[in-house]
Amino acid sequence: MKLGDDVEAAIHCAAMLAGIDGDGTLPGNAMAEAFGLSPSYLFKHLKALTAAKLLESVPGPAGGYRLARSADRITLLDIVLAAEGREPAFRCGEIRQKGSKALDPSAYVKPCGINVAMLKAERAYRAALAETRLSDIVADFTATADRRVVAASCTFVAQNQRPQNSRTRSERKTS
Amino acid sequence: MKLGDDVEAAIHCAAMLAGIDGDGTLPGNAMAEAFGLSPSYLFKHLKALTAAKLLESVPGPAGGYRLARSADRITLLDIVLAAEGREPAFRCGEIRQKGSKALDPSAYVKPCGINVAMLKAERAYRAALAETRLSDIVADFTATADRRVVAASCTFVAQNQRPQNSRTRSERKTS
Repeated sequence: MKLGDDVEAAIHCAAMLAGIDGDGTLPGNAMAEAFGLSPSYLFKHLKALTAAKLLESVPGPAGGYRLARSADRITLLDIVLAAEGREPAFRCGEIRQKGSKALDPSAYVKPCGINVAMLKAERAYRAALAETRLSDIVADFTATADRRVVAASCTFVAQNQRPQNSRTRSERKTS
Repeated sequence: MKLGDDVEAAIHCAAMLAGIDGDGTLPGNAMAEAFGLSPSYLFKHLKALTAAKLLESVPGPAGGYRLARSADRITLLDIVLAAEGREPAFRCGEIRQKGSKALDPSAYVKPCGINVAMLKAERAYRAALAETRLSDIVADFTATADRRVVAASCTFVAQNQRPQNSRTRSERKTS
């Protein structure tokens, strides 16, 4: 069993976006740079998170990504399902009724107990993922990660974030 | 996230082997036929279960496979790990320290909180798999599956199992 590398990238990006001030955005290129990822690889996954309505993509030269809702309303499960799809990891192929001695399909109406047991375990996995909010990840990072890493991350976001309506704000300044 | 098809085959085969009388065996070809699988595909996976010491492989014309220990001492977790490997599904690539602004490695000694949270969820998954024994799967099947399927499965095992020391037993009969 393997989760795609995209899950790690997706959670890190979402956690970084949680650090933006107000309704600002962070360009995908900046996040790709922060994590040593190819921009085209990352854009594909940011698109999936946007399609799942976890992120918002703001177009234009001052655009970028931001969380579509607050970090305490996004869980690790939301991110994993957005990145990996909603299908269960165990996909029953109904091999119990594929052999040469298989009976009439009416004998297999009741779900296979193996499938039932495997899906029960997956519910436990998903429940555990759903218990952890993105805000928990960010709070834990801020409280316990190496001070240098926290400081560098804050500086990176501050330097790369783009306030929304920045042109308007700039115009207001000069008017 | 996706588990291999081999997990379904592995659990079904192990459950079927739990139905063998005494120390008898069941040939891999018979199990492949029962589940509509290619023998070469199945042999590969039976080999993995044997390497993990969940099954025993008895060589020779009267040989085949049997459980290496009783079904109440084999869990779904044992089978999943034997089939899929013991690595966690979430494999941290340490992208937090791969960006252009990465700090000295000493800043990343503490494990990444995202990895910690993902592995915590996997522990919940594995605990749920470990709670279900192969004997539970078999008991549930016997008690709740369609009567026709239970009867057909018992007949199939009875017809295809090979008592061990069958030659010796036969020799004893004729002596």
